[in-house]
Amino acid sequence: MGAIKYELIKECKQTGARRGRLHTPHGIIETPIFMPVGTQATVKSMTPEELKEIGSQIILSNTYHLYLRPGHELVQKAGGLHQFMNWDKPILTDSGGFQVFSLGELRKIKEEGVTFQSHLDGSKHFLSPEKVMEIQNALGSDIIMCFDECAPYPATYEYTRDSLDRTIRWAKRCKDAHKNTENQALFGIIQGGMYRDLREKSVKEMLEIDFPGYSIGGLSVGEPKHLMYEMLEYTTPLLPKDKPRYLMGVGSPDALLEGVLRGVDMFDCVLQTRIARNGTAMTSGGRVVIRNAKYMEDFTPLDHECDCYVCKNYTRAYLRHLIKAGEILGARLLTYHNLYFSLNLMKNVRLAIEEDRLLDFKEEFFKKYGYC
Amino acid sequence: MGAIKYELIKECKQTGARRGRLHTPHGIIETPIFMPVGTQATVKSMTPEELKEIGSQIILSNTYHLYLRPGHELVQKAGGLHQFMNWDKPILTDSGGFQVFSLGELRKIKEEGVTFQSHLDGSKHFLSPEKVMEIQNALGSDIIMCFDECAPYPATYEYTRDSLDRTIRWAKRCKDAHKNTENQALFGIIQGGMYRDLREKSVKEMLEIDFPGYSIGGLSVGEPKHLMYEMLEYTTPLLPKDKPRYLMGVGSPDALLEGVLRGVDMFDCVLQTRIARNGTAMTSGGRVVIRNAKYMEDFTPLDHECDCYVCKNYTRAYLRHLIKAGEILGARLLTYHNLYFSLNLMKNVRLAIEEDRLLDFKEEFFKKYGYC
Repeated sequence: MGAIKYELIKECKQTGARRGRLHTPHGIIETPIFMPVGTQATVKSMTPEELKEIGSQIILSNTYHLYLRPGHELVQKAGGLHQFMNWDKPILTDSGGFQVFSLGELRKIKEEGVTFQSHLDGSKHFLSPEKVMEIQNALGSDIIMCFDECAPYPATYEYTRDSLDRTIRWAKRCKDAHKNTENQALFGIIQGGMYRDLREKSVKEMLEIDFPGYSIGGLSVGEPKHLMYEMLEYTTPLLPKDKPRYLMGVGSPDALLEGVLRGVDMFDCVLQTRIARNGTAMTSGGRVVIRNAKYMEDFTPLDHECDCYVCKNYTRAYLRHLIKAGEILGARLLTYHNLYFSLNLMKNVRLAIEEDRLLDFKEEFFKKYGYC
Repeated sequence: MGAIKYELIKECKQTGARRGRLHTPHGIIETPIFMPVGTQATVKSMTPEELKEIGSQIILSNTYHLYLRPGHELVQKAGGLHQFMNWDKPILTDSGGFQVFSLGELRKIKEEGVTFQSHLDGSKHFLSPEKVMEIQNALGSDIIMCFDECAPYPATYEYTRDSLDRTIRWAKRCKDAHKNTENQALFGIIQGGMYRDLREKSVKEMLEIDFPGYSIGGLSVGEPKHLMYEMLEYTTPLLPKDKPRYLMGVGSPDALLEGVLRGVDMFDCVLQTRIARNGTAMTSGGRVVIRNAKYMEDFTPLDHECDCYVCKNYTRAYLRHLIKAGEILGARLLTYHNLYFSLNLMKNVRLAIEEDRLLDFKEEFFKKYGYC
C-alpha cells in the first residue's frame, strides 16, 4: 500500500501541466499546490486556523531546524509534529540537507554523513541518511525527504557528478532506514545540477530505487531562471505519471506558473512570508513595497482584486504605518495576504487546467503581474 | 447632552467597588473594565476581531505616538482612528503628557506648553493644551484626556504643588479648546503626587471645571503599592458618583482588584502585552515564565483554569519552543492569553460585585495567584 497515493485527474493538452489529487494520512491535497513553509513548527506569524482559512492544504517544516530546536525526541513525546503544533492536515518535511550544506565552512562531508556546527550555538552534530530518517520518523510528517546534497551553482561537472553519486547512495540508505512506510511517504530527490545527462542519470537511478514521489532539487540556487526551466523540461517528462513531483524551494508567482506548465505538482517557498515581514506584498498588479512614501495616504486596499481578510479590512496607508512602526500586526497581515495570494493563484491554476485554458491564464496573469 | 453617560448599577456594600455602565458613541462599556493598550493604533500582535473575541469593550491608544507617527492629520484623512485601525468599538486616548514628561532631558516645560524632541528622529515639537485637544479631536477617540504633568516619584511638596497648579490651569485651557464635545468626552486628570491635601485640592479644582469623567494620574510611578492604594482611598470618595473614574496606567491583576475595591471603573496597562512578548504569562496560579527549562516537556495547557483559544489548543512545551525560537506566533499567543486573562478577571469581578461577594472573590484569587 504505502502512505500516499497520487491520482492523476487531468493532463493539459497544450502543456506539461497536470491536475491531480494526493491522498495522504492527514487528508487529500488537490494539486498543483503551493505549500506554506513552517520552518520552526510554525508558519511565521500564522495560526493553524488562519492557514486553513486561506486554503492551505499542506505545510512544510524543516528537519534541520526542528532537530536542533526543540529536538525531534521532544516533538515525538508531544505526539508528533502535527500534535505539537496543532496542525491536523498533511505536513511535508525536508531532509535538512539543504540547510546543512548551506553552512559552508561549518560543515564537513564524508561518505558516512555530514559533520556540522549548529548555527544557533556552534555545538557539533552529525547527520547521516540513517539519522535523518530517524528524525523524520520521530516528527511523523506525512511526506519525508531523502538526505541529499544540493550542489551549489555554479559547480563543475566533476563535482556535480560525484555529489550526485553520493546522493544516490544516500537515497538507498534512506530507503533502507525508513521505519514507517505505512504512514510516511519517502521522496527521492533528483539532483544533477545544470547538466542534462546528470539529471537524466539521477532520474534513472532514483526510479530504480523506487519511491512513492520525486522531488526536484538543486534548482533556484542562483542560476538564471531560463536555466531552471530548461532543467525542469529535461526532468519532468522522465518521471512516472502516477507519482507526485515536488520542486523544492521554488515558489515566486512566475516560477509557480512556469513550474506547473512543466509538470510540477508541489511547490514551497519562504519568499511569501519573508518579504511580507519586510513589508512587501504580492498583488495582482505586481509587487507592492508598502514602505514607499507613495502609499502614505493611499486609503485603498492592498490588492483591488483580492478578497482576503486583509484586503477587505485594511488600507495601504494603515499597513504602511504598521510596517514602518515595526508592529507585529503588519507582518501578520502581509504574511496572511501573500500566502492567500499564492494559494489563490494555485487554485485558479487548477481551475484553468480543468478548463483547458492554462496558457491564456498565464498570459493574462503576467500581463498584470510582470515577471519577477 | 455630551458624548458619554455613566450609569451606576450597583454599589458594593462592603467596599468602594461599583458596577456600572458607560454609554459612549461607539457602544456600551460594562464597568469596571480593563482596557487593552494599542499604542500605535494596534494592540500589539492582535487583530480587532481577536480583541472582540476575548471580550475587549474599549481600547486605549496614545496621542504622543500617533501624533509623531503616522500623524493625526493622516489619521483624520483616513476617517479617524476607528476607521484607520478598523476598530468600531470605543477608544480612549491619553493626552501624551505622560510620554512627553518621560522624555527627561529631551523636553522643556513652560506655562504655554512643552517643547520636546521626538524619540524617533530627534525632531523638535511643541505640545500645549490646545494642540493636544486639536490632535485628539482629529483622532476622534470617544474619550480624550486633558494635557497634564504626571509628577515623578519621589517629588517635593513644592514641585508637586506647582506642577498640579499648572495642570489645573492646563485643564481649563483644554476644556476651552475641546471642539467636539458631542462625540468626544474630555476627562479631567487628578494629580497631586503622594500628598493627600494636593490630591484633595486637585479633585476640588477639577470638579469646579467640571468634566464628564475623571482620571487618576500620577500613580504607579515607582511608589510602593500601599502608597498608591492609600492615595486612591483619599481620592475616589471625593469624586462624583455619576461620573466614571479611570486609574491611568495601572493594570497588574492585584492592582486591578485593589483598584476596583477602592471605586475605580476603568484601568489600562501595557503589562499584559509587554510581558507576553518576553514570554511571561498571567495564569490563575500566578505568573508563568515560559522560557524556564521546567516547561520543556510540559504538555499541559498554559493555565488549567482558562478556556481561551490558547489554553484549549497549545501546550506549555510548544509555547516555550515558540518564544525560545523568537517566533511571532509565541508573542501572539501569549498576548492573546494575557489579555483574555485580564478581561476575564474583570468579567468575574463584575459578577462578584453583582452578587455581593467581591471580598471573597479577592481572597480566593490571591490565594492562588499571589501578590505581584
